[in-house]
Amino acid sequence: MNSTSVAIVGFGKIARDQHVPALHDNAAFTLDAVASRNASLEGVAHFRDIQTLLDERPDIQAISLCAPPQVRYRQARAAIAAGKHVMLEKPPGATLSEVEDLRAQAERAGVTLFATWHSRYAAGVAQAREWLSERRVSSVNVQWKEDVRRWHPGQEWIWEAGGLGVFDPGINALSIITAILPEPFFLTQGELEVPANRQGPIAATLAFRDAYDADIRAEFDWRQTGPQTWDIHIETDAGPLSLTQGGSRLSIGDEVVMEGGDAEYPGLYARFAELIAHGESDVDVAPLRHVADAFLLGQRVSVDAFHE
Amino acid sequence: MNSTSVAIVGFGKIARDQHVPALHDNAAFTLDAVASRNASLEGVAHFRDIQTLLDERPDIQAISLCAPPQVRYRQARAAIAAGKHVMLEKPPGATLSEVEDLRAQAERAGVTLFATWHSRYAAGVAQAREWLSERRVSSVNVQWKEDVRRWHPGQEWIWEAGGLGVFDPGINALSIITAILPEPFFLTQGELEVPANRQGPIAATLAFRDAYDADIRAEFDWRQTGPQTWDIHIETDAGPLSLTQGGSRLSIGDEVVMEGGDAEYPGLYARFAELIAHGESDVDVAPLRHVADAFLLGQRVSVDAFHE
Repeated sequence: MNSTSVAIVGFGKIARDQHVPALHDNAAFTLDAVASRNASLEGVAHFRDIQTLLDERPDIQAISLCAPPQVRYRQARAAIAAGKHVMLEKPPGATLSEVEDLRAQAERAGVTLFATWHSRYAAGVAQAREWLSERRVSSVNVQWKEDVRRWHPGQEWIWEAGGLGVFDPGINALSIITAILPEPFFLTQGELEVPANRQGPIAATLAFRDAYDADIRAEFDWRQTGPQTWDIHIETDAGPLSLTQGGSRLSIGDEVVMEGGDAEYPGLYARFAELIAHGESDVDVAPLRHVADAFLLGQRVSVDAFHE
Repeated sequence: MNSTSVAIVGFGKIARDQHVPALHDNAAFTLDAVASRNASLEGVAHFRDIQTLLDERPDIQAISLCAPPQVRYRQARAAIAAGKHVMLEKPPGATLSEVEDLRAQAERAGVTLFATWHSRYAAGVAQAREWLSERRVSSVNVQWKEDVRRWHPGQEWIWEAGGLGVFDPGINALSIITAILPEPFFLTQGELEVPANRQGPIAATLAFRDAYDADIRAEFDWRQTGPQTWDIHIETDAGPLSLTQGGSRLSIGDEVVMEGGDAEYPGLYARFAELIAHGESDVDVAPLRHVADAFLLGQRVSVDAFHE
């Protein structure tokens, strides 16, 4: 099988730390170019923006978009129009409607569009989904609490309109529970704590239900110093399941059944290769839809100004 | 053809003013019951809630839900589970995710679900859509400005989280432009003016684009006294089109081509009858998705407190 020639557009921390090593280890892809205003990668062709890249390298077959969501639509549209397969970092866009539009464009162009949710490829997720598929869930408790100063230093865009605030990590939890719970669910109540000097929430408390009235709760908080928490606890008719450490550690009952290393980005690129090979797309907006629902239905409460 | 036996659930102003006369004039339906805690209709069986209605009147074939969106999901779920066809007033729910769930439930149950957008049945809309389908749109200007004190006296829920604020009328404009514009579009920028003592916005300024970069703008405002404005002006490669007076008056170029009376609710029930006859559903969430996008991406600005 020939290797797919891929370019990364938007070369920040996530591209360097995750995408480059995952591509390096996957024989299905060759990283042939990077487009970024400021950053470059030694030994790989560099272009200052996606249009120059598309114009000068018609041989590139796929584009992995790692720029912030606010600019992603135009880049994705240009790549699709040029006939490239496209992989989108999460979230897939700044609005749900633009993602619907990209989905339609990719279908018309006959290219693969993959809206990724990296947390769905954490080590314990697939087995959790399989185990839960035959159980009746009675309650879900999501605790997703981290220190924003540690994980997002200097990232002003994350606080601005369209930047999602604490839902930027919280959407990872939502991407996991939308993947593993056997029934769809929806928000019934939400509270968003918004710092007086910011647009995006610093914390959120959410209550969901499913068609069987399972009690699904989530707490997202960016003010947690010390140990960091990315845990999901689920009660079922066959006992409890816990997916902790961001999804990499799975316990069923009292037993740890999986404790994996970091498998997320290798998993994403394996899936991207599979989608390209089968001529398919994978665009699930459910996690972003839940965030939009929280902004729509949630009660906003003003809290102390946040200064980094 | 036998007439479909229908019940109205939630018997407020919109039910009395619009649904009852529209049902009266449509031979495809017979209004056989009303469920409402406080209100009733002379000569029609009355039940205090939907569950009592469903339990005591298994002969009812269809339910028209007119209660506020915050309680609509449970009512719709109960009706679908009882095998009834369901028509939802706008907006179809308090969240996008619950509407997706209802859509799936209706499909499994083999009943018709109709998420209505009454403004789409205003007299000029169908012809506007047909004319625009062969044109290239360059710009759209939506002016939807009314006096909230006049149209929503005492309706506190409309200001609360989930009540949408000025998007309650604004979603009517969105339901029209999503129906008539030939290309899908998406929000690129928004400003929501929120009274200091309320959750919902009193005004909004929105900028959208489509895949061909049409310049689509909308202004919603609830502070307009005097003449009320519900106008959409569109520029195309074949000249201008205006849909004014909430969609009932259509001008193409300099010519008024349609000036109709109030045809919205008769149109909705004609469509509901057609959907039931063909065993189909019609659940388009696009207008609500644009509102959710505006809450997600829009910049919130605090303005003077609103007192009725």
